[in-house]
Amino acid sequence: MQAVRERGLARHLAAWSRSEGTRAACVGRAWCDSVHESPAECVRGAELVVVCVPVDRIVEVLAAAASGMGGGAIVSDVGSVKAGICRAAGTVVPAGAFFIGSHPMAGTEKSGLEHASAGLFEGRSCFVTPPSGAVGDGEEWGGGVVKAVGVLERFWRALGMRTFVVSPQEHDEIVAGVSHLPHFAAVALAGVLMRRPSQWREFGGPGLRDTTRVAGGDPGIWCAIASENRAQILDALDNYRAELDSLRAVFRDGDDKALYAMLSRAKEWRDLLPLLPGS
Amino acid sequence: MQAVRERGLARHLAAWSRSEGTRAACVGRAWCDSVHESPAECVRGAELVVVCVPVDRIVEVLAAAASGMGGGAIVSDVGSVKAGICRAAGTVVPAGAFFIGSHPMAGTEKSGLEHASAGLFEGRSCFVTPPSGAVGDGEEWGGGVVKAVGVLERFWRALGMRTFVVSPQEHDEIVAGVSHLPHFAAVALAGVLMRRPSQWREFGGPGLRDTTRVAGGDPGIWCAIASENRAQILDALDNYRAELDSLRAVFRDGDDKALYAMLSRAKEWRDLLPLLPGS
Repeated sequence: MQAVRERGLARHLAAWSRSEGTRAACVGRAWCDSVHESPAECVRGAELVVVCVPVDRIVEVLAAAASGMGGGAIVSDVGSVKAGICRAAGTVVPAGAFFIGSHPMAGTEKSGLEHASAGLFEGRSCFVTPPSGAVGDGEEWGGGVVKAVGVLERFWRALGMRTFVVSPQEHDEIVAGVSHLPHFAAVALAGVLMRRPSQWREFGGPGLRDTTRVAGGDPGIWCAIASENRAQILDALDNYRAELDSLRAVFRDGDDKALYAMLSRAKEWRDLLPLLPGS
Repeated sequence: MQAVRERGLARHLAAWSRSEGTRAACVGRAWCDSVHESPAECVRGAELVVVCVPVDRIVEVLAAAASGMGGGAIVSDVGSVKAGICRAAGTVVPAGAFFIGSHPMAGTEKSGLEHASAGLFEGRSCFVTPPSGAVGDGEEWGGGVVKAVGVLERFWRALGMRTFVVSPQEHDEIVAGVSHLPHFAAVALAGVLMRRPSQWREFGGPGLRDTTRVAGGDPGIWCAIASENRAQILDALDNYRAELDSLRAVFRDGDDKALYAMLSRAKEWRDLLPLLPGS
């Protein structure tokens, strides 16, 4: 909300949080015009509703807010998994309101209000995920969804993000690969090393810190993300295991030429990863 | 050598490099008193010799330098694998000189003179690896090894490092876990993702950048390291695969309690990794 206020994207910013402490902490902040006891009350009259709660809470909060949503309201979330949520959300928001999923790829392994910052989104990627077939084919859905997608794209871009419109399913396949798999890979690394003498921690260089950093993420949040994207993550883990096995085989057989080729292709791929502003 | 000069640890700093270009680049630098055409010439009269070449070159460079090494010379290297090198080096250095392996855990995925810096070692860990049994049991080796270990520890500490004395074998087991395994894990991640649309690169957040960073390392250097530490790395890869498999099984079965426990233990371990100065 800091970023929304700083960039003057909203006349009135209304906040709700399940936690009384967080609600209290919002009162009187420059980026918060009103704090509400209930989701429905919070969204009353809103043109844009963005639900920012852990993925396993999004649908229940949408349901609790539904009675307050007016016709034409554009409703979104920031969950890092989309297929299941978008399916359920479509049945929960009232007729005349449009739910379109969002996933701003920003943030760190730290969570909570105290880690929020206005520059968080600058230059990062953001997915906008209308239901498959809804965009392009105006017929089935009417132009409303198309308009809503446009509004959301402009909103995230105004926060400095680069937006990409994909289906919820395509989104989940992508994040399983670029986000959830790296998380599991890091957790497994920590799992191997925690069985060794704790002094080994002192022997880790920057490489160990970086390869394991995401394993410091909140276990509850990651359990929720993982169970929302189980099938895609299992596929990604199978691909990872196959890749590790062929890497191991090439290495075990002392095939230095093949090993060199695998390491070179990996370097080539990594060297082309775009730099992230502010990281 | 910049760091050695800055901290005034040597009266005379002599340099040799296989590459004529690098030798030329060293001439006239404040941290280089003489540049030599041959290793033997370079080490003549030296009290301390530190061979800084890729692990697969160390023994041949030591052999080429041996004829120049005087009695009492302390000889070391900075290779990131130790058992094989220390075994071979012991047979190559002349009687009266002492070879004790070193492994300063500093540096980045970048290699080469242009990436050298005086602050590189500050606060990092450095292994000193005398032959098993050589330290403690003065009898077998005489006090020379013990003295040499002391000199090397003081040398690396004077560069700002924290030193740890372990056997070459113990060292190789440790680095297989904290350095080589993370490298292979990152390479395999890149290997999975390079098979996906190249646009996926734009969807990676800081987590993907960090978990894959070391995969940007030099393929030649890593092939050499890997083949020097094959057995230990294969063991580490087996442990990693087993850990991934149990993580996958717990996740596939939807055992959220067990998954939460694994993620929590991983976070606990990661949160206790010491911060690295200058990184």
